Amino acid sequence: MAEKLSTEPYKGVRDFYPEDMAVQSHIFDTWRRTAESFGFERYDASVLEPSELYKSKGAENEEMVNEQTYTFLDRGDREVTLRPEMTPSVARLIAGRHKELAFPVRWYSIPNLFRYERTQRGRVREHWQLNCDIFGSDDIAADVEIIALAYQTLINFGARPEMFTIKVNDRREMKDFYHSLGVIDEDSITKVTRLNDRFHKIDRSEYVEELRQIVPGAAEAILAFLEESKQTDNAVTRALAEIGITNVEIDRSLARGFDYYTGTIFEIFDNDPKNNRSMLGGGRYDDLTSLFGDERIGGVGFGMGDVTMRDFLETHELLPQKKAGALVVVIPTEEALNLEGEKAATRLRAAGVSVTVDISTKKLGKKLAAADHAGSGYVLVVGEDEVARGEYVLKNLADGTEVSGALTKIADAISS
Amino acid sequence: MAEKLSTEPYKGVRDFYPEDMAVQSHIFDTWRRTAESFGFERYDASVLEPSELYKSKGAENEEMVNEQTYTFLDRGDREVTLRPEMTPSVARLIAGRHKELAFPVRWYSIPNLFRYERTQRGRVREHWQLNCDIFGSDDIAADVEIIALAYQTLINFGARPEMFTIKVNDRREMKDFYHSLGVIDEDSITKVTRLNDRFHKIDRSEYVEELRQIVPGAAEAILAFLEESKQTDNAVTRALAEIGITNVEIDRSLARGFDYYTGTIFEIFDNDPKNNRSMLGGGRYDDLTSLFGDERIGGVGFGMGDVTMRDFLETHELLPQKKAGALVVVIPTEEALNLEGEKAATRLRAAGVSVTVDISTKKLGKKLAAADHAGSGYVLVVGEDEVARGEYVLKNLADGTEVSGALTKIADAISS
Repeated sequence: MAEKLSTEPYKGVRDFYPEDMAVQSHIFDTWRRTAESFGFERYDASVLEPSELYKSKGAENEEMVNEQTYTFLDRGDREVTLRPEMTPSVARLIAGRHKELAFPVRWYSIPNLFRYERTQRGRVREHWQLNCDIFGSDDIAADVEIIALAYQTLINFGARPEMFTIKVNDRREMKDFYHSLGVIDEDSITKVTRLNDRFHKIDRSEYVEELRQIVPGAAEAILAFLEESKQTDNAVTRALAEIGITNVEIDRSLARGFDYYTGTIFEIFDNDPKNNRSMLGGGRYDDLTSLFGDERIGGVGFGMGDVTMRDFLETHELLPQKKAGALVVVIPTEEALNLEGEKAATRLRAAGVSVTVDISTKKLGKKLAAADHAGSGYVLVVGEDEVARGEYVLKNLADGTEVSGALTKIADAISS
Repeated sequence: MAEKLSTEPYKGVRDFYPEDMAVQSHIFDTWRRTAESFGFERYDASVLEPSELYKSKGAENEEMVNEQTYTFLDRGDREVTLRPEMTPSVARLIAGRHKELAFPVRWYSIPNLFRYERTQRGRVREHWQLNCDIFGSDDIAADVEIIALAYQTLINFGARPEMFTIKVNDRREMKDFYHSLGVIDEDSITKVTRLNDRFHKIDRSEYVEELRQIVPGAAEAILAFLEESKQTDNAVTRALAEIGITNVEIDRSLARGFDYYTGTIFEIFDNDPKNNRSMLGGGRYDDLTSLFGDERIGGVGFGMGDVTMRDFLETHELLPQKKAGALVVVIPTEEALNLEGEKAATRLRAAGVSVTVDISTKKLGKKLAAADHAGSGYVLVVGEDEVARGEYVLKNLADGTEVSGALTKIADAISS
């Protein structure tokens, strides 16, 4: 036999042992519960997509596909990519049924996404993301609702509003402002937008210098606009305030990287100084689907990643301490009684509760300690006497109370 | 711009539009609920694994990796494979923490798996699978429990026992029988086992002919053993009967393809003549982990696929007819009231129910019809009068009853 195999996962991806998976399930369950409470319907697609889906928007995308994705030729010489983001896939699905769908539609998904990049803290090569979109409505109510959904997701994790800030901007308002300064060519506006994306990451002087190179006559006015923006509001922030969401500010420097946004854009920042970064972002786009046909379908949406979500929950101590143990542990006193234990467990499960049987070779005392350590609620010992009499004792590990009798009686006691 | 992009998914994989995803979620939720009711803990790993994980068992596996998997070189020249099965991944995880884990452990996962093969009915290139294993116990109670879990999964989907048959065999019992006939070399036993795997797929005469070529002196005895097996039982089938599972038969022809099984093996067959095939299979293995180190850890487990599961549920009409609509649809009477609609929805969600707002441009009557069509339970109309008075009417779509008043009163009425 060859040398021993490594137990490490592939570089840049994560294993989820049960204690990690419990956190992951908590995150996915909260995402799902919140999205569905807003009437969003779940969709999915395969992680494998034809590579042309990502290349279609021109040379820049082709470079991204070639350098930052997992792309390979399959055995039929088709070029295939592990999806790096969900938007192209959902655009494909929406375009594929745009005639049958009753717009507006609210869709969400929790896909895994792959990016080939240098691994560093918080930068893994595979991560999961909650993607929520409202397609086919250009009403401001959709913008407000999508931000309210992002907000409510954090609240449903137990976050308080003072733990995070929703920053809002609007591409149309920015465009109107640039036009008012005489900056009207698209190229300059795109350059300023991309520079603004770095506003909080570079020195003020560096920002000003680069800005002057792009728009010599308008730099001071733009800088003033960005620096005074927190005192202002717009229709979206006022509507959010009306539904009780007030940890919101206009940030005119907010740019978002993607060129396809056309209206409202927003990001949510963790307020904790240890973790002060963007946790999620999204915005409104006019055209999701024209690559697939003649019709343009717009919408508004956001994406929220599992790694940043977990960092936020850990930073603010919002992860539940609940252990994963079954509610009832059935404990046979010796190996010869394991099958009797399975029989008892089957009866108790009929009450709709989770039941495990300790079929380890441990002694009774160690089994009782293990049940307590696992956070289980009850134990039921199965010994020779119990089997002979057909009467058992269910012990509550929290308060020590007991219920005795036939298994049907005990099942009733658990389920009531 | 280039020609229009196709809206088709990559060859051999599936898109899940909301109505398909609802079925998928129903299957995954039922799998999860059942596994957790038996105290199984969920784990996961990435779909990307180092290719050597699958090649390590020798030339046959290397051929499988080269011909039937998605395998490619990453940008760092590492050979990587999209997992074709979960067992090597879970073996890797178990081996990686075998010193810390308190055996026996009960683990489950719902991974997607990729196989590169010709696409045909029921044969997709990506499918999902429920994988359940009990590791680190050689007690028969584990064999019985894992079969009971597979059984209970189908029952929890609404299946009745007469809809399916659990076929059981035992590799040790088969070996003892071959030995009793003087067939003792491992090579002959392996050949007979593989031939038995085709017992129900080929003619009796073809089977006998091939069997005679392998074991000339023992063919008749083996054939008789296979054909009479349904009248027999063993310790596993007797224990299953004791916990109320009686749609079970011994089938001495049951072989299971995998060489790593060493004891109990089982499959569950759909009894419907239209769909008469194996839905899931599993068994006991002695050694999962020695490829990773010196210690052997055995167990018993099974895998159950989403495609065969869905076929079974459709054949027996066990898919729920429930529609995915939100419980309450808030209906603004005109676009200018959409934000008022969002406000009302926010209040009602505080009652813990799902609420959507119809921000389409449809007329009121069409909106009411759409809410009914979506299977929603209630509608709440938001018109100018309602907003001015702060009083709304919640209408129950099932029985036509109404509750009127402030939103707090209505929220109370919904949640009670």
